[in-house]
Amino acid sequence: MLLIRPATIDDVPLVMRFSRELAEYEREPSAVVVTEEALAKDGFGAQPKFRALIAQWDGQPVGYALFYDFYSSWRGSGIFLEDLFVRESFRGRGIGKALLSHVASIAQREGCYAIRWEVLDWNKPAMEFYKSLGARFVDEWKQVLLEAEALDRLANG
Amino acid sequence: MLLIRPATIDDVPLVMRFSRELAEYEREPSAVVVTEEALAKDGFGAQPKFRALIAQWDGQPVGYALFYDFYSSWRGSGIFLEDLFVRESFRGRGIGKALLSHVASIAQREGCYAIRWEVLDWNKPAMEFYKSLGARFVDEWKQVLLEAEALDRLANG
Repeated sequence: MLLIRPATIDDVPLVMRFSRELAEYEREPSAVVVTEEALAKDGFGAQPKFRALIAQWDGQPVGYALFYDFYSSWRGSGIFLEDLFVRESFRGRGIGKALLSHVASIAQREGCYAIRWEVLDWNKPAMEFYKSLGARFVDEWKQVLLEAEALDRLANG
Repeated sequence: MLLIRPATIDDVPLVMRFSRELAEYEREPSAVVVTEEALAKDGFGAQPKFRALIAQWDGQPVGYALFYDFYSSWRGSGIFLEDLFVRESFRGRGIGKALLSHVASIAQREGCYAIRWEVLDWNKPAMEFYKSLGARFVDEWKQVLLEAEALDRLANG
């Protein structure tokens, strides 16, 4: 039996664990540097910076979705789906789709024009799945990231 | 003389105009469907969904930056720079860099790990400029968008 529920502050250790499992799946195991304290403050404080859903199968947490609002000055409000993850042994049961569908209904309820997310270019099964839902790949835009020393330099230059 | 200041609700018509000019520059003139009412509510209400900066040259508005907070469950808070635009006849004076530098200092003050944005793959001058600042192109991630009927279907399916 599948249940999807909003994450609470008590789920922070679980979200942290899922986030690490996702990083391992995406071959970036050392990418997770956020702390439980930061996740608790950022997600469950007065001004949450993200929201999350937990998927449970027979009472056991098996996956999650983590998302935040984005904004387009052309189109208006949208939801950015930062993380979508289902543990390997529970894949193929429609849990990922149920999580996505839940996010879609939140987006619709809140008047969002779209959900956006990202997929690694080698993750063909995920790409096929997204295509089957009618998602579109936006290939003409390149992603740019400014961090660490380059960010310091620009901020103080 | 360059001045960079936060946008207020009085700047909504200006932001709207800049947003259209940006859409024309990016060859998507019909992409702007947001209304002034929505921009006013979404940007300057109780829970702003974006922030904006206006660049003025000798008192005349010549460019803007529009951004919102994003969140990485691996790295924490960041700023997503949705729009960066300087009117053509005012380019080459460092106004774009000054806007970006302002956003970078906000990011730093707020403890963000990075600024992210997007650039169209044919916009070589912009890409060279971003590279010169030490920005990194994240090419292994593909962008996915789910909207319109596909979003409805998933929300209600």
